[in-house]
Amino acid sequence: MKNDKIYLLRAIEIAANGIIHNGGPFGALIVRNNKVIAEAFNSVVLTNDPTAHAEILVIREASKVLQTHQLYDCTLYSSCEPCPMCLGAIYWSGIKKVVYAYDRTDAEKAGFSDKLIYGEIGLEPSKRKISFIRLTDQGGADVFRKWDELENKITY
Amino acid sequence: MKNDKIYLLRAIEIAANGIIHNGGPFGALIVRNNKVIAEAFNSVVLTNDPTAHAEILVIREASKVLQTHQLYDCTLYSSCEPCPMCLGAIYWSGIKKVVYAYDRTDAEKAGFSDKLIYGEIGLEPSKRKISFIRLTDQGGADVFRKWDELENKITY
Repeated sequence: MKNDKIYLLRAIEIAANGIIHNGGPFGALIVRNNKVIAEAFNSVVLTNDPTAHAEILVIREASKVLQTHQLYDCTLYSSCEPCPMCLGAIYWSGIKKVVYAYDRTDAEKAGFSDKLIYGEIGLEPSKRKISFIRLTDQGGADVFRKWDELENKITY
Repeated sequence: MKNDKIYLLRAIEIAANGIIHNGGPFGALIVRNNKVIAEAFNSVVLTNDPTAHAEILVIREASKVLQTHQLYDCTLYSSCEPCPMCLGAIYWSGIKKVVYAYDRTDAEKAGFSDKLIYGEIGLEPSKRKISFIRLTDQGGADVFRKWDELENKITY
């Protein structure tokens, strides 16, 4: 718990550093066995990449460093509650613990859409602000059946 | 609508191509003004990157090609309903329309966690399978206040 606070303060420091370096006000780091594996601040505008949130960047970097897509024994520290995109990435990565300081309401007050997206995600696809259209009669290959039949595949 | 079907069939074709090339059974493309800007299949295992879903990869590629983090006039075609991570990325990118074929239930049957993550996302952070811990007394800098005070910033 003492270390949690130290690493979380570091995440906030990275966020402040992001503001100075033309990034966004979000910072994150990934720690494994009490060792920092990756650090990043939000770089969406800086790199023209809408997915370049601090959490996505540290997950990608930690996966690269550890050469695995499964970060089971890692903890993610983030200055702010992860948005739905980053939450999804956390689940896919297998990270088991996340510690954060500010939340989606704080982010909303600062002009970010985290809370709006959390609201949208629970709606039926057809009722969202973005048009989600499912075409079931497209006649394409049944790719999941092909996947099922594939031998020696690595699942996750 | 006719073009929607053509591009969606291409997304499924890319997914099938992914299976052949050691990727996952998901394909996506981004189209702007009837021109394909980016195509990708799921490369999570192939590249050791848990964020390398087809939709994330095409959003990153299209942003690179178009040199902007805002893909307002683009449509995303995906063989499967985007997972919460990719849905979040779609909102952040500003894409206004998404067309897909299979859904989260089909993905679940093929062994993927999309539906589980959709369920988790609506829960209170403290009630999820992954431990989400908020520390409010960490004493760090108020980075959102610093952000508010910043002049000439690019918001999104």
